Amino acid sequence: MLNFEILKTDGLARRGRLKGTHGETETPCFMPVGTLGAVKGVTWDKVEEMGYSLVLSNVYHLYLRPGLEVLKEAGGIHRFTGWKKLILTDSGGFQVFSLGKLMEIKEEGIAFKSHIDGSKHFFTPEFVVKFEEEAGVDIGMVLDECTPYPATYEYAKHSMERTVRWALRSLEARTTDATALFAIVQGGIYEDLRLRCVEELSRLPFDGYAIGGLSVGEPKDEMYRITRLVAPQLPHDKPRYLMGVGKPEDILEAVEAGIDMFDCVIPTRNARNGTLYTSTGRINIKSAKYKKDFSPPDPECDCFTCRNYSKAYLRHLYVSGEVNAVILNTIHNLHFYGKLMERIRKSIEEGRFAQFKEEFLKNYAETE
Amino acid sequence: MLNFEILKTDGLARRGRLKGTHGETETPCFMPVGTLGAVKGVTWDKVEEMGYSLVLSNVYHLYLRPGLEVLKEAGGIHRFTGWKKLILTDSGGFQVFSLGKLMEIKEEGIAFKSHIDGSKHFFTPEFVVKFEEEAGVDIGMVLDECTPYPATYEYAKHSMERTVRWALRSLEARTTDATALFAIVQGGIYEDLRLRCVEELSRLPFDGYAIGGLSVGEPKDEMYRITRLVAPQLPHDKPRYLMGVGKPEDILEAVEAGIDMFDCVIPTRNARNGTLYTSTGRINIKSAKYKKDFSPPDPECDCFTCRNYSKAYLRHLYVSGEVNAVILNTIHNLHFYGKLMERIRKSIEEGRFAQFKEEFLKNYAETE
Repeated sequence: MLNFEILKTDGLARRGRLKGTHGETETPCFMPVGTLGAVKGVTWDKVEEMGYSLVLSNVYHLYLRPGLEVLKEAGGIHRFTGWKKLILTDSGGFQVFSLGKLMEIKEEGIAFKSHIDGSKHFFTPEFVVKFEEEAGVDIGMVLDECTPYPATYEYAKHSMERTVRWALRSLEARTTDATALFAIVQGGIYEDLRLRCVEELSRLPFDGYAIGGLSVGEPKDEMYRITRLVAPQLPHDKPRYLMGVGKPEDILEAVEAGIDMFDCVIPTRNARNGTLYTSTGRINIKSAKYKKDFSPPDPECDCFTCRNYSKAYLRHLYVSGEVNAVILNTIHNLHFYGKLMERIRKSIEEGRFAQFKEEFLKNYAETE
Repeated sequence: MLNFEILKTDGLARRGRLKGTHGETETPCFMPVGTLGAVKGVTWDKVEEMGYSLVLSNVYHLYLRPGLEVLKEAGGIHRFTGWKKLILTDSGGFQVFSLGKLMEIKEEGIAFKSHIDGSKHFFTPEFVVKFEEEAGVDIGMVLDECTPYPATYEYAKHSMERTVRWALRSLEARTTDATALFAIVQGGIYEDLRLRCVEELSRLPFDGYAIGGLSVGEPKDEMYRITRLVAPQLPHDKPRYLMGVGKPEDILEAVEAGIDMFDCVIPTRNARNGTLYTSTGRINIKSAKYKKDFSPPDPECDCFTCRNYSKAYLRHLYVSGEVNAVILNTIHNLHFYGKLMERIRKSIEEGRFAQFKEEFLKNYAETE
């Protein structure tokens, strides 16, 4: 059971609350990515301490490892992973599409070969729903056909239409409302296709709606244009999720358009590459200029890393290849994203989101 | 300033307490290895939570990265690393010797090439003391000539004698007692050389004495024989440290011979290889037999990992190459070592160390 409540609006921006069996989360929210049932570099206690209560995982990856049977025998994904709060799983459509030559789309579903051992598999919309229900995830995404960028109008139309047919099949396959089901809007960068997709999916009783097929290589303007077009058209009383987005500035743009949920590998992946988010922009901790910089990564940040460690030490760990660099950088970046969302929520509550957005972007520059 | 107090003895085993400027540690103790100023896989808060208050680092590695200048400008190694408790640094003699062709021993010191960039460097006993004092470590080890195994009597004699000469030079180079200085006994597997080394070093006013050159490839019997011979001959009122040892069974043998301090990469390195220490022996978490084993690694263990995670989940993380496997396995193994030392100390206090040792070894088998 998923309950969504809008507490306040400010322009199109929405301040809400999402409640499920495994707790609740305040929206707009960012979901840390835990593809394989773990957020790389941080244990669950740290994820929770940072204020997160909803994380993202992935059917494609969990299906291959550890497999549905293990998840079921463990008593579900929460028992297996040890994460006690909310879990949303992406269907894996995007991951399967990334396999390129290793996959083939048919009307029935997607045939693909495992990126691990080349073994053959077949995903149908029905199977993905079954997986999500049996694994006991709180929010499951339907299987969709992720339209690549660039794509011709014909291709985008075809894949959008299939996505709608698959969404319907997903609903029909549903056996419980213990796992909420979200639809995914496709249509590439074509406005009429996006709007038709919204129209068709909105008629169906989904628990939430996502915008897919963005942040797949298109120019930023296109991403913003489609988000601004689509978000306000989605059912007002249901949570809206912009998949795979994004950078702080992208999140601000999307919140302004009425998006409630986000996920992105950026904070965690960048942490592993030595890129840290700060109130004045990104920094790269590898830089020689930090060799003797004994100040914290962000003097305005109160995360575990900034309270205890200097740039010089983090740089030392990073250049020495110490695994602790991953841990400390990840904590910092996830804390930064958590705080950003907290400030976004507060500014909506206080009716000053536009002002917050402007101030944040003025201070924040993509410095490196 | 280092203060060592023996609280209780049980046979040759000693229950003591080591006090320094940055806190105190109960002995016999195990020092987690933090070669580069970090214990791989765990942040300092976790190290402290596990009850550790003395960690080991390494002059050779710290000299190359981040370098003495950085440590000094940071205000010392504690300020730089963020570890607020006791730090002992090995001189790096052992590491330099491991460089093989990249190093050359002279009476003046050791010429070597960096394993990172091939740059040329020269370590003297005086420089190592200076490094340790200026970095502000609590306990510094002298530079020694680590005798390899096997070594001829002549070679071992020669390197033992040089180690004694270098120990004397180290003492003469000393400028403060803020950094305690420990001597290292060498002499290979030759009893008369070891005893002569003990005799010569014992005359000198060191703050503690270590046994070096063991656990370098010699048969276990030889390690035990030399430890049993040397340990009781070392000054009674000073801490005794068996370098680079060891496995749980080795630690028990050495405590029985009167050793107070240990360090070893085994718990942390093995954690990274998927080997976990349990009350019934070692297990390898990679094993397929744990695929659906939802019990903790050690039902008798109350560590963070065992309280929250199953073998099946840890196996999943490990086989998927997730960095969280390193974190959780390391926490478990360091907790195991910490608990082992705690039980050793308690058994000495209660005059039943021999009994504890026997019981522990009966339950504990090197199962995998």
